Amino acid sequence: MTYQINETHDPNLKSWVESANDPNTDFPIQNLPFCSLLVPEPNQDWNYWIPAVAIGKEFLNLRKCVEIGLWDDGWDFAFGQEMGAGGKALTSLFAFDEIDSLRSDVSHILSEGFHLVDRARECLISQTEISSFGLPTAIGDYTDFYCSIFHATNVGSMFRPEAPLLPNYKYVPIGYHGRASSIVVSGTDVKRPHGQNRSDAEKPPVFIPAKNLDYEMELGFFVGKGNELGQPINIKDAEEHIFGMCLVNDWSARDIQAWEYQPLGPFLAKNFATTISPFVVTMEALAPFRTPAFERDPDDPQPLGYLSDENNKKFGGLDINLEAYIQTEKMRDEKIEPFLVSRSNTKDLYWTVGQMLTHHASNGCNLQTGDLIASGTVSGSEKSERGCLLERTWRGTEPIELPNGETRRFLEDGDEVIMKGFCEREGFRRIGFGECRGRVLPAD
Amino acid sequence: MTYQINETHDPNLKSWVESANDPNTDFPIQNLPFCSLLVPEPNQDWNYWIPAVAIGKEFLNLRKCVEIGLWDDGWDFAFGQEMGAGGKALTSLFAFDEIDSLRSDVSHILSEGFHLVDRARECLISQTEISSFGLPTAIGDYTDFYCSIFHATNVGSMFRPEAPLLPNYKYVPIGYHGRASSIVVSGTDVKRPHGQNRSDAEKPPVFIPAKNLDYEMELGFFVGKGNELGQPINIKDAEEHIFGMCLVNDWSARDIQAWEYQPLGPFLAKNFATTISPFVVTMEALAPFRTPAFERDPDDPQPLGYLSDENNKKFGGLDINLEAYIQTEKMRDEKIEPFLVSRSNTKDLYWTVGQMLTHHASNGCNLQTGDLIASGTVSGSEKSERGCLLERTWRGTEPIELPNGETRRFLEDGDEVIMKGFCEREGFRRIGFGECRGRVLPAD
Repeated sequence: MTYQINETHDPNLKSWVESANDPNTDFPIQNLPFCSLLVPEPNQDWNYWIPAVAIGKEFLNLRKCVEIGLWDDGWDFAFGQEMGAGGKALTSLFAFDEIDSLRSDVSHILSEGFHLVDRARECLISQTEISSFGLPTAIGDYTDFYCSIFHATNVGSMFRPEAPLLPNYKYVPIGYHGRASSIVVSGTDVKRPHGQNRSDAEKPPVFIPAKNLDYEMELGFFVGKGNELGQPINIKDAEEHIFGMCLVNDWSARDIQAWEYQPLGPFLAKNFATTISPFVVTMEALAPFRTPAFERDPDDPQPLGYLSDENNKKFGGLDINLEAYIQTEKMRDEKIEPFLVSRSNTKDLYWTVGQMLTHHASNGCNLQTGDLIASGTVSGSEKSERGCLLERTWRGTEPIELPNGETRRFLEDGDEVIMKGFCEREGFRRIGFGECRGRVLPAD
Repeated sequence: MTYQINETHDPNLKSWVESANDPNTDFPIQNLPFCSLLVPEPNQDWNYWIPAVAIGKEFLNLRKCVEIGLWDDGWDFAFGQEMGAGGKALTSLFAFDEIDSLRSDVSHILSEGFHLVDRARECLISQTEISSFGLPTAIGDYTDFYCSIFHATNVGSMFRPEAPLLPNYKYVPIGYHGRASSIVVSGTDVKRPHGQNRSDAEKPPVFIPAKNLDYEMELGFFVGKGNELGQPINIKDAEEHIFGMCLVNDWSARDIQAWEYQPLGPFLAKNFATTISPFVVTMEALAPFRTPAFERDPDDPQPLGYLSDENNKKFGGLDINLEAYIQTEKMRDEKIEPFLVSRSNTKDLYWTVGQMLTHHASNGCNLQTGDLIASGTVSGSEKSERGCLLERTWRGTEPIELPNGETRRFLEDGDEVIMKGFCEREGFRRIGFGECRGRVLPAD
């Protein structure tokens, strides 16, 4: 059961990795997110791949833990063939049955007082040793939901003021398939896409670089164990199919979107790039930050039976703060810190991740290990809680003012978007998601 | 250039495989489609995989051709690591640079008068030896277009009689992302999905087995060489990125679709299953059957510059006949042949496959080897040319009468849908696509 709190969540637990005990770190010993590191092979022009756990400012090299016999032999199996030089992703781990025991072992190895601390120290890798992060897993299919009622209402009211929220919204966790091939890891530059723009309805559309480039701040989760085609997933079991979570920036070109999206939904407005954070925070690490599912208005319908479950209602929500910052090129030159533009919380999502997953598989659609499912833009009720520029600047009519006097309706070339995520709760250590960064390059 | 006719298309070319010379076969020596065979391992409970070419009623085992040294050593490379027991798909072949030379060698080996015909005969596999077909390739992403203007107009007029065709249709090859994980090969049963149905707008939706289950008859094509993220594909080069084609049945649950599809497009109405034919007909084999792109009305806009090219306009179309048959359970019991319900032709598509591919990559979206792209339902101007039941029975209001007196508005349990495709042109051998079959199983 993923809501259970155990000794790995003990706020007094400390690590022998000093930086992990900093109260502001995203990665205390209570977190232990998995990630994929690319490390330069000495005297070669290629990188090799290391499965790792982030701890403070460092990483625990899980391959080395196996090599020097630091932990249970069985855990070798969790990395499957990918443990060798061939693979680059944690896909086998995602489907591993005993992930909680494995995480508990990692917690033990990294705890203050671990009896083999000198050997364990050999397994640390510092940030300066790595060339980049890899995608944590091979992503077969990517699905994006639309689960923030605040986002859906805001966007709906811009395009359909007479009926902002469509009649299906409170019954159906609305989602659509995104593009898996163009998912990139934090730090990858994103080139402004070309596309058809018909902002002048009197003239034919033109094929030009997108004018209204936007971010969308989302929560993503990875499928752990999959289901067979034709076999739905009961809402009671939904979370057993979720391995962990990351941040997602669903880059969106609003001018392309407005013109192309009817009747089959967004396509080229979205599939030029989607950025995810490199760290996968496990469901177990998130146990202290569970909340009740979104409280519906008394007049709202209750979820249909296949989406209803007592545990889901009590614990299905997540208290994760999400933040999106912008730093323009000029701000970088002037050494001005990134500016907070959106801050929201996933507890405001109308549908829980369990409901998203169960709905997705409710027609028998087979979810596979490593599939990425995202929440859709996470917005709240306040203006500052709007999770994309389309909402934040109200379609560009209320530009954001930046600290150096610049303004933004949408993203300009050179702008970097930085997303952060973190959980805080009295009596528990703060844990974080790291960053999801991407800089906008000019169109060709 | 994929439009060029060469000696492999010579209608007088005959094969020493007798069944390939039957004028009605789908697989004369002028075709040579690739496929993936699963063959039982003697005395084991598993299958091994064989890359093959269909010829008449038999298959040429390409692995064995390599083993006995029947053809160029270099072709081994075309199958990459998958040539071994590990893989199950032709993905390396799809990206192979010299596919036309390879095909020409296969043509030579199978030609009447081949000097090593006795050895080549050892490489034949008959249909009775195989347990099933595999998917021809690992499909990373699946995209479905909406390129028949007749289909779009028919469907639009049911749901938006005042404006059947949306303003973007003649400018944008409309498409959306489908589900890759649930693509299955011909012969796989398809279970009727559950889903939300709100046919009674006065009451809340109910979660029940889909009532209006439909097929959609489509042409699919596989990406050969991919493009890097951020690097569009020029319309002049588009077809160099297409390896070959297959038939696609995009199963659709119309009641689920009607309720869920706004505002982000079809999702659970489609992703429970998509069936493809096992044979990949290469672009080279289709060279004799090229047509001009769809002739637009004089009042219609011309394609924007990035979708315009002289060769595409002259040769971008394809003259492929598509047919969909239904055989109900009762018809099978009564030994009544499958009944032809839809027959259309891909030359009626408003956008060419080159335009679909170029549009898809026009924002820099990276297409990858093995990606499947489908045309959307292929319908023509006549009633008999409507490529799905929604259109064919006009939303169920004009049921189809079957030869044994049964009628159909939509598919019922036990119905089998059989799609066929073939090309005919004076002066050339007929070539075919084989079949794309699937039977509807009752919901759980």
